[in-house]
Amino acid sequence: MKGYAMLGIGKVGWIEKERPKCGPLDAIVRPIALSPCTSDIHTVWEGALGERHNMILGHEAVGQIVEIGTLVRDFKIGDRVIIPAITPDWGSIEAQNGYSMHSGGMLSGWKFSNFKDGVFAEFFHINEADANLAHLPDTVDPASAVMLSDMVPTGFHGAELADVQYGDSVCVIGIGPVGLMSVAASTLRGAGKIYAVGSRPNCIDAAKEYGATDIVNYRDGDVLDQIMERTHNKGVDKVIVAGGDNDTFIDAVKMLKPGGIIGNVNYLGQGDYVRIPRLEWGCGMGHKTIAGGLMPGGRHRMEKLVSLLENYRLDTSILLTHKFNGLEHLEDALMLMKDKPKDLIKPVVMI
Amino acid sequence: MKGYAMLGIGKVGWIEKERPKCGPLDAIVRPIALSPCTSDIHTVWEGALGERHNMILGHEAVGQIVEIGTLVRDFKIGDRVIIPAITPDWGSIEAQNGYSMHSGGMLSGWKFSNFKDGVFAEFFHINEADANLAHLPDTVDPASAVMLSDMVPTGFHGAELADVQYGDSVCVIGIGPVGLMSVAASTLRGAGKIYAVGSRPNCIDAAKEYGATDIVNYRDGDVLDQIMERTHNKGVDKVIVAGGDNDTFIDAVKMLKPGGIIGNVNYLGQGDYVRIPRLEWGCGMGHKTIAGGLMPGGRHRMEKLVSLLENYRLDTSILLTHKFNGLEHLEDALMLMKDKPKDLIKPVVMI
Amino acid sequence: MKGYAMLGIGKVGWIEKERPKCGPLDAIVRPIALSPCTSDIHTVWEGALGERHNMILGHEAVGQIVEIGTLVRDFKIGDRVIIPAITPDWGSIEAQNGYSMHSGGMLSGWKFSNFKDGVFAEFFHINEADANLAHLPDTVDPASAVMLSDMVPTGFHGAELADVQYGDSVCVIGIGPVGLMSVAASTLRGAGKIYAVGSRPNCIDAAKEYGATDIVNYRDGDVLDQIMERTHNKGVDKVIVAGGDNDTFIDAVKMLKPGGIIGNVNYLGQGDYVRIPRLEWGCGMGHKTIAGGLMPGGRHRMEKLVSLLENYRLDTSILLTHKFNGLEHLEDALMLMKDKPKDLIKPVVMI
Amino acid sequence: MKGYAMLGIGKVGWIEKERPKCGPLDAIVRPIALSPCTSDIHTVWEGALGERHNMILGHEAVGQIVEIGTLVRDFKIGDRVIIPAITPDWGSIEAQNGYSMHSGGMLSGWKFSNFKDGVFAEFFHINEADANLAHLPDTVDPASAVMLSDMVPTGFHGAELADVQYGDSVCVIGIGPVGLMSVAASTLRGAGKIYAVGSRPNCIDAAKEYGATDIVNYRDGDVLDQIMERTHNKGVDKVIVAGGDNDTFIDAVKMLKPGGIIGNVNYLGQGDYVRIPRLEWGCGMGHKTIAGGLMPGGRHRMEKLVSLLENYRLDTSILLTHKFNGLEHLEDALMLMKDKPKDLIKPVVMI
Repeated sequence: MKGYAMLGIGKVGWIEKERPKCGPLDAIVRPIALSPCTSDIHTVWEGALGERHNMILGHEAVGQIVEIGTLVRDFKIGDRVIIPAITPDWGSIEAQNGYSMHSGGMLSGWKFSNFKDGVFAEFFHINEADANLAHLPDTVDPASAVMLSDMVPTGFHGAELADVQYGDSVCVIGIGPVGLMSVAASTLRGAGKIYAVGSRPNCIDAAKEYGATDIVNYRDGDVLDQIMERTHNKGVDKVIVAGGDNDTFIDAVKMLKPGGIIGNVNYLGQGDYVRIPRLEWGCGMGHKTIAGGLMPGGRHRMEKLVSLLENYRLDTSILLTHKFNGLEHLEDALMLMKDKPKDLIKPVVMI
Repeated sequence: MKGYAMLGIGKVGWIEKERPKCGPLDAIVRPIALSPCTSDIHTVWEGALGERHNMILGHEAVGQIVEIGTLVRDFKIGDRVIIPAITPDWGSIEAQNGYSMHSGGMLSGWKFSNFKDGVFAEFFHINEADANLAHLPDTVDPASAVMLSDMVPTGFHGAELADVQYGDSVCVIGIGPVGLMSVAASTLRGAGKIYAVGSRPNCIDAAKEYGATDIVNYRDGDVLDQIMERTHNKGVDKVIVAGGDNDTFIDAVKMLKPGGIIGNVNYLGQGDYVRIPRLEWGCGMGHKTIAGGLMPGGRHRMEKLVSLLENYRLDTSILLTHKFNGLEHLEDALMLMKDKPKDLIKPVVMI
Repeated sequence: MKGYAMLGIGKVGWIEKERPKCGPLDAIVRPIALSPCTSDIHTVWEGALGERHNMILGHEAVGQIVEIGTLVRDFKIGDRVIIPAITPDWGSIEAQNGYSMHSGGMLSGWKFSNFKDGVFAEFFHINEADANLAHLPDTVDPASAVMLSDMVPTGFHGAELADVQYGDSVCVIGIGPVGLMSVAASTLRGAGKIYAVGSRPNCIDAAKEYGATDIVNYRDGDVLDQIMERTHNKGVDKVIVAGGDNDTFIDAVKMLKPGGIIGNVNYLGQGDYVRIPRLEWGCGMGHKTIAGGLMPGGRHRMEKLVSLLENYRLDTSILLTHKFNGLEHLEDALMLMKDKPKDLIKPVVMI
Repeated sequence: MKGYAMLGIGKVGWIEKERPKCGPLDAIVRPIALSPCTSDIHTVWEGALGERHNMILGHEAVGQIVEIGTLVRDFKIGDRVIIPAITPDWGSIEAQNGYSMHSGGMLSGWKFSNFKDGVFAEFFHINEADANLAHLPDTVDPASAVMLSDMVPTGFHGAELADVQYGDSVCVIGIGPVGLMSVAASTLRGAGKIYAVGSRPNCIDAAKEYGATDIVNYRDGDVLDQIMERTHNKGVDKVIVAGGDNDTFIDAVKMLKPGGIIGNVNYLGQGDYVRIPRLEWGCGMGHKTIAGGLMPGGRHRMEKLVSLLENYRLDTSILLTHKFNGLEHLEDALMLMKDKPKDLIKPVVMI
């Protein structure tokens, strides 16, 4: 079969590989809709996972089952399914402890294009199919649904980590596709004011559609100053970090009220340390909690999130600025994510 | 001053009383907008609180401060304020323990038209003004804001008690004004399907506007049967009880999935026992949690909820089917609540 | 192989059955220590699960692996293991949602002597061995460890459901072996006063050893009256129900403070309804939460609990009033549970 | 009246001041037992709160009421009371939001020897007496009870922040008096293994008495290496930071399992940044939560904690290595805290 792979750090291309084998609990799926992710860019061009050779990329997909394990009960060949980016081992100690995304070790619930080949191929493999697939409802568009693999659960997890409550003021730092989903997630948990930090015009428009009440653009001055001014120096109840770098946490802690929470869903790819400003952290005693975590995956999560699409609570189509048809356009889509043209939020490839 | 009072069980009328005194922590307020509540009806015609003589009724108000205690710091004469129905003693053990609505004893955070005169008067008294008042923002209509005294916090507390999460299926039993706010609250906490149980046409319309995806009308058959059929016999993730009686919990437990929660915000006025069906409660072991509680009051809560109005997350004006002008129309408004004409959701009296 | 079985309602005896088969994820175990449970009595003599023919009884065991599935990674033949009474399907929706004990349906995580043969046999079967077995540490006595199958996790879950906090006053209703473990669990979560409700002398002695500060004996007067008198009419912060019947909840609600929680771990075997006293439940608004649930099973739970034995936080040997040697004495042990002689807390059979 | 004061940075001495005035909600108390705290040392010799002149020191006290406000209901002259170090404004927004210790601003619930004179005087002032005092039970020794002002609630809050659960492995970094109380608190929340990091012999002995299973002494090698070796490279479930400095968090994050929590109760007095190691923090996605907070104060907390002493759950007398009699010995006690002789845990002065 054909797959679009990382050939080595900084190198990508189509390769031929054997179609994956289907174990008794597994499924083999062919793609219907695929989307590249900034993580794919980190993997290839920043070597975020280290050197890899001929590893098929991709972890965002909607597809159709072509082969099914003998012990799988709830899915059959032909079923159209949503595939989460995170596909845990559900019997692991970590999953039993409520942290399935870390099954088998920190972050190890992330298997696609990490511990095994990804979804950018004619076929790909699903472990524990009954537990890691969700049926795609007929009423949900596959292009919209592919945002459920990673963008929606990651962005929404930010609002869960930050524990947004009715009427909270929330600052969402970063309004790429994940940050936009954190804005939507804050709206859908009842936030009052939502300060969205970003600068790209179409992302700003999308942020407003998703519920941002205030846009904070770093081109208009220091972000922290702007937040403090708009909040009359009180700061915000919660911060969701969906962009920036290690030093973003300095501002995040400074703008947070005592009793507040920072929920980070941004992958921090470089540098040795995240720095927490001692004084504004209350000398360690300010009850400003710093949380961060990989998205929960698996079937239950996908079913819950797809019900938001089915019931018109969330419209992910706003994210899809660029659409391609045909597997062969995966490279075009990936390069868009690498080059980030001004009008891009997220590309999708229909097969 | 004039006040509209319960003269005795089953009897109401205007009385003359001395204007309340303002202690050092208190405020005296004149009403701007008032709304009668079903509780007022229970108090007078069902004797829910026992016999009372010449007790001024009412606990839903927006008003203006006319006198202020010497130790109050954040409010001054002339300020327009939202008054929560529940005005706790914030230093009490119960408030320190997180249950301010039970300060001084179960349900004793409810003081208006219970332990002291209510708000249906030319003037009324606020205890711990700094902690129990919230400023009315200029951009918020007083008629809409008076729904923040009781309808919004009570309805929203149902969704908090039931701990609605992203994608949950929720059944809201009862779609009077409180139930409608539970529907809105479920939408604003990210529910997927919301089954609203009710029959009155304008309440059904309002429920749909607030986010109900399915209406379950008892005139179309047994409510439980309808829910189980629509959920393919799986039941729902959460139930909010905002209407019915003691036996409503029988259906509520039956329609609830293991691991689910019932959040009750309905005042149960009669009968000796609420009954829980043993078998469907998993013989005591089904993890079907039954919670119920009086709304949280106080300033912080009001500030959080008013930010939902300020930021257009919630539109309470849909509830206001009947508007009167002039204190003298309080009786008309109250009688509407007593007689419940078909087109009524909630009346408001502007002064 | 030989097994001790329910032949039909009211009838027990030894039968011959084929040794269970070992699937790829499974293990076959021979018993080292076994203990009968009150549930076995309910199953046989009250027909709690309905009619069953030749179903091998028992769900409390420590054993040794004699056969292991090809996909099992962390256990091998010869390993000595603790077997939890509840052995969930970890990939199920319910387990992903945090309620593994209800995997596949309410209470369906309970498989032994319910959906399949139990542990009172020469050999028994474990599903998902990697996820449902725990290694028995060399330093832990198998007789003490067999209490980890059910008595400890059930009793401890009561304290978790009731969310016991530092300094809480707790009432534990029922001080059979489960209730005693709820007393120990309350002590180990930092309770202040623990009122233990019971009457049998050796259970009273054990309750005191496990941390009960006050014994409430129904022979000395009404239980509720005694609790209210000792708490100066304030009631208690939390109640754990580990005994009694449907009507026990009436007293439990009455003795509970607003904001309190009832954690039920008692199997309610009879009657149609549990009754909640309306008035003392705050007319539905008293924030007296009623929770009840089957114990969490699985490996992670067993590992956590065995660490309490390893580190001398908990001594389960106090429970073991009667010891037998040899599988053939299972019947004697079971009959002890049926007849409940005065000096019995829990019997154990060593093989 | 006489008071022992900070005269300026680095300077202490006895001064004469007017006895504080008693407002309507207040109480004036004379000391029965006092204890100096490391915070007093930071305040004077490190200028932790900035320059202060003639500010009476001290925030740990048990005393007797000598004057009482007209609006105080539950306390009277002559009552013996426990005084928490933190005495919040209970009506504040922050207290209503569950963070009373930050009432009026981050850390501002701490008033003694910070915003007003402390307790090292013949008389001292209590704000909101009904909400901030607790009765000293007759059965509790005042010297033991004075540990409830700060050492116990601070240490216990570490275990609450870290959310210690049954069977958790916990590392407590620092075994001065606060850390020792974190060890006790971990035991009293059901921890399994407790690794206590410290080196002073009498603190090590006390740690073992309070439930530490393993002592990790930095003199025996790198602390992180020792923890990882003893946990077979798995790390611990929870970390409580009760000592060290900004860089202690580097080790704390490294030794923590995904899904774990760091609970900090150590006052960080110097340096610009706390550093979080990016990689071991899971690149921001490891679900290693970093929490830290000032102790909760107030009456409810004191009542809960004193019940642990009354019911023999906790013995604080182990901490009291040095006892003095007479107010005049306050200086000796304070100098002990400054010089930290080898055999010191905590001094107490009885008056």
